[in-house]
Amino acid sequence: MDRYNHRKSQMLLKITTADGKPLKNAEIAVRQIKHKFLFGCAEFSVVPFVNGEFSGDFKEKAEMAFEKFVELFNFATLPFYWGRFEPVRGKPDTQRLKNAAQWLKNAGFVLKGHPLCWHTVTADWLLELTNDQILEAQLMRIKREVSDFAGLIDMWDVINEVVIMPNFNKYDNGITRICKQFGRMGLVKMVFDAAREANPKATLLINDYIVSDAYEILIEALLDKGVKIDAIGIQSHMHQGFWGVEKTQEVLERFSRFGLPLHFTEVTLISGKLMPPYIKDLNDYKPESWPSTIECEERQAMEATLFYKILFSHPLVEAITWWNFIDTFAWLGAPAGFITKDGRIKPIYDALYNLIKNDWWTGTQTLVTDHDGFVRVSGFMGEYEVSFKDKKSKFTLDRKYEVAQIIL
Amino acid sequence: MDRYNHRKSQMLLKITTADGKPLKNAEIAVRQIKHKFLFGCAEFSVVPFVNGEFSGDFKEKAEMAFEKFVELFNFATLPFYWGRFEPVRGKPDTQRLKNAAQWLKNAGFVLKGHPLCWHTVTADWLLELTNDQILEAQLMRIKREVSDFAGLIDMWDVINEVVIMPNFNKYDNGITRICKQFGRMGLVKMVFDAAREANPKATLLINDYIVSDAYEILIEALLDKGVKIDAIGIQSHMHQGFWGVEKTQEVLERFSRFGLPLHFTEVTLISGKLMPPYIKDLNDYKPESWPSTIECEERQAMEATLFYKILFSHPLVEAITWWNFIDTFAWLGAPAGFITKDGRIKPIYDALYNLIKNDWWTGTQTLVTDHDGFVRVSGFMGEYEVSFKDKKSKFTLDRKYEVAQIIL
Repeated sequence: MDRYNHRKSQMLLKITTADGKPLKNAEIAVRQIKHKFLFGCAEFSVVPFVNGEFSGDFKEKAEMAFEKFVELFNFATLPFYWGRFEPVRGKPDTQRLKNAAQWLKNAGFVLKGHPLCWHTVTADWLLELTNDQILEAQLMRIKREVSDFAGLIDMWDVINEVVIMPNFNKYDNGITRICKQFGRMGLVKMVFDAAREANPKATLLINDYIVSDAYEILIEALLDKGVKIDAIGIQSHMHQGFWGVEKTQEVLERFSRFGLPLHFTEVTLISGKLMPPYIKDLNDYKPESWPSTIECEERQAMEATLFYKILFSHPLVEAITWWNFIDTFAWLGAPAGFITKDGRIKPIYDALYNLIKNDWWTGTQTLVTDHDGFVRVSGFMGEYEVSFKDKKSKFTLDRKYEVAQIIL
Repeated sequence: MDRYNHRKSQMLLKITTADGKPLKNAEIAVRQIKHKFLFGCAEFSVVPFVNGEFSGDFKEKAEMAFEKFVELFNFATLPFYWGRFEPVRGKPDTQRLKNAAQWLKNAGFVLKGHPLCWHTVTADWLLELTNDQILEAQLMRIKREVSDFAGLIDMWDVINEVVIMPNFNKYDNGITRICKQFGRMGLVKMVFDAAREANPKATLLINDYIVSDAYEILIEALLDKGVKIDAIGIQSHMHQGFWGVEKTQEVLERFSRFGLPLHFTEVTLISGKLMPPYIKDLNDYKPESWPSTIECEERQAMEATLFYKILFSHPLVEAITWWNFIDTFAWLGAPAGFITKDGRIKPIYDALYNLIKNDWWTGTQTLVTDHDGFVRVSGFMGEYEVSFKDKKSKFTLDRKYEVAQIIL
C-alpha cells in the first residue's frame, strides 16, 4: 500500500489547439510546478530583508539564504506580534509587512499571519485600559489586520496558546486579563467572529503548544459551541528532544478525531545540544552559546525526515511549518535553522529538499494524447505545467476527479 | 487572622419557656453535635456489613471498625458501579444499597452515590447494544437510581473521569463508545439532565482524577454550555506520594476560579511503601504484598493532617472523603485505610479525630441569657444542642446570620 496515496490524484486532460481541434496522438510533457501541501517556514528576517534594511555581509548572507528559502518552501508565516507590530497605539507596522507579504506572494508563496491574539509579546499599552477597552482594542486590531491584508494573507493564527492563557502568571498583561474575565470559550468565540467578519474567505486557526487532553477538550468544546475552526494548529518545538514515532502518532490520533485539517505550525528540531529536560518554560533556558555541531546536524536531518514522513503520510495534515530557517535569527538563540550563523547550509536542507522536490514530487512525464486529444495524468496534488513543443499551459491536480480542458 | 474564620458563624438565640416567656438570666449549655463541613469516607464494605453478610472474626472486626467510622465521619460515599450494581440487565442491587444507606442515614450521615456514568466497571451487557441503545440504557439507569434513592441519597457523582473517557483504550466498553460518538460535552449534558430531572433537589457532581488544565477547561466549557454543576469533584489518590503544599494550593487555585464548591472526593495517602513513579495507570501496580509499616503510618498521619488543614482553610472546599477506611478492602490492596488488616487503628485516626472533633469543633460552652432571654452564640458551623437543666433543643449555626427562636 502506498502510504502517500491520499496525496495523489489523477485527472483527464482534454487538449485542443487554439482553433478548438483536439491535439491528436501528440507527445506532450507534464511536470509538477507546485505542491498542494503547504511546506512552510517562519523566517521573520524576511521583513527587514525585503524592506532593504540589511547591508554588507548581512545582506549577502540573507540574499543567499532567501534564494534557498524560495527554492524549498511554498508557504510562509509572517509575524504579527501585537507588541512589535503596534508598539505605539495607532501606529501599526502595516506597510513593512505588506512589502514582505507581496514579495513572498510574488515568489509563489501562500501566507499566514501569526498571531492575532496572544498573551505574550502583546502591546504594553493595553495595561492602561479597562478590560472592556482591551477587548475592544483586541477585536478592532484583528479586524484591521485581517482586512488590510485580505488577498495577500488569507490565513491566520487567530489565537495562540489559549490553554494556559487565563493562568499565565509570569507577568501581568492585557490579554490574560480579558481571558480571565470572559473565559477561554468567550474570548475564542469573539476573536474568531471578528476575524471571520473581516475576511469571510480566510482560513482561521487556533494554535497551541499544549498537545495533551487539555487542548483536545478545548477544541471539542469550541466546536460544540459553534466556533468554526478551519484548521487545528499544533506546535512542536522539540528543543528538548524529538518526540519520536510514538508521541507523534499519539498526537495525530488525538487531534484527528475532529476530522479537521491539522497544521504543524511551529516545528523545531535543533542541530546542537538538547535543552535539559528539567526546563519547563523553554524561555527560561539561556546558555552562553548554543553551537550547531556536525553530529547534531546529522541527527537533525534524520529526525526531521522521519517527522515529515509521519506527518505527510497522515491524511489530515495539510501544512508543516519549520521554525525557523536561519540560526542567526532563531528563537532562544537555538541552532534551529537550516543555515548556520556563518552561512553554511546544514544537511537538513538537502534531506528535506529530497523529500519535497524529489520523493514527493511528480517529475516530468512524457505522455501521448489519444485520437480525441485526451490524456490521463496522475501524480502528487498541486499545480502542473503541460507543454507541447513551445506551447505551455497549466492545470491543477486536486482531490476531486474531473476533466480539464486545456488549450495548447 | 483566623485561617478557619469562614468555617465559623454566630447567631442570636431567643430562648423562651414552654409558656412563651423569655428564659431570663439563665445559665445554659451549648455544644456542637454535628459539622456542616462534610468529613467523609468511602468504605464499601458497609454494604455487606449492614446486610449481615459478614460472620465470625470478619464480623467482629467490622463491628469495631464501623463503630470508629461513625464516631469520626458524617458523610459517606456508596458504590453504584454499574457493572456490579446491575451485572444482569434488569436486576439492580437496589435493596442491599438501600439497607446500607438507611443504616448510615440513621447514624446521622449525609450520603453520596458514586458513580452514575463511568467507562470503568461498567455493565458488560452494554457491549451487545447499539450506541443509541447504550445511551438510552445509561440515561434510564441514572433516572432509576436517582429516583429510587431520593431522600436517602441526594448527592451523586454523575459522571466520572470524563477527561480521558473517549480516549480510554485499555478495553472496549459501552461508555467510551457513546462518549466518542456524542462527545464529552454532549454526554455530560445528557447525564446531568437525566439526574436533575429525576431529583431536582440533588447535589450533582462531576468527578475526575485529572487535576490539570484539561479538567479546568472541560468545566469551563460545560458551564459555558449551561450544564449546572453543583460541585466540582477532585480525586487525589496519592499512592505515589503526597502532593505537598505547593501542588495542593495550585489545584485549589486552578479550580476555585469558578466559584463553585469543591469536593475532595477520593483522598488516599498510604501507610506503606510508595508506588514507584514510573507507573502511569495505578491499576498496573500489583505487588505481592503491600504492608502497612510503623514509620509510614506516622508519615500518613502527618501528611493527612497537613492536607486536611490546607483544604479546610480554603473557603470553597465543602467536603473531603477518604478512600477508604479498612486496609482489608482497599483499592489495589494498598495500605490506604485507617485500620490495618489485623484490625489495628493507625495514628491517622487519632490525628484526624483531633482535628475534626477537637480543633475544629466547638465544645460545650456555658452561656447566660440576658433579661429578654437572648444569648449570642458563636462557633464552627453545624448543628448544636442547647440545654437548660434537663431540657434540650437543637439549632443550626450556618453562614446566614439570623435569630433563632428556641423553646426550652
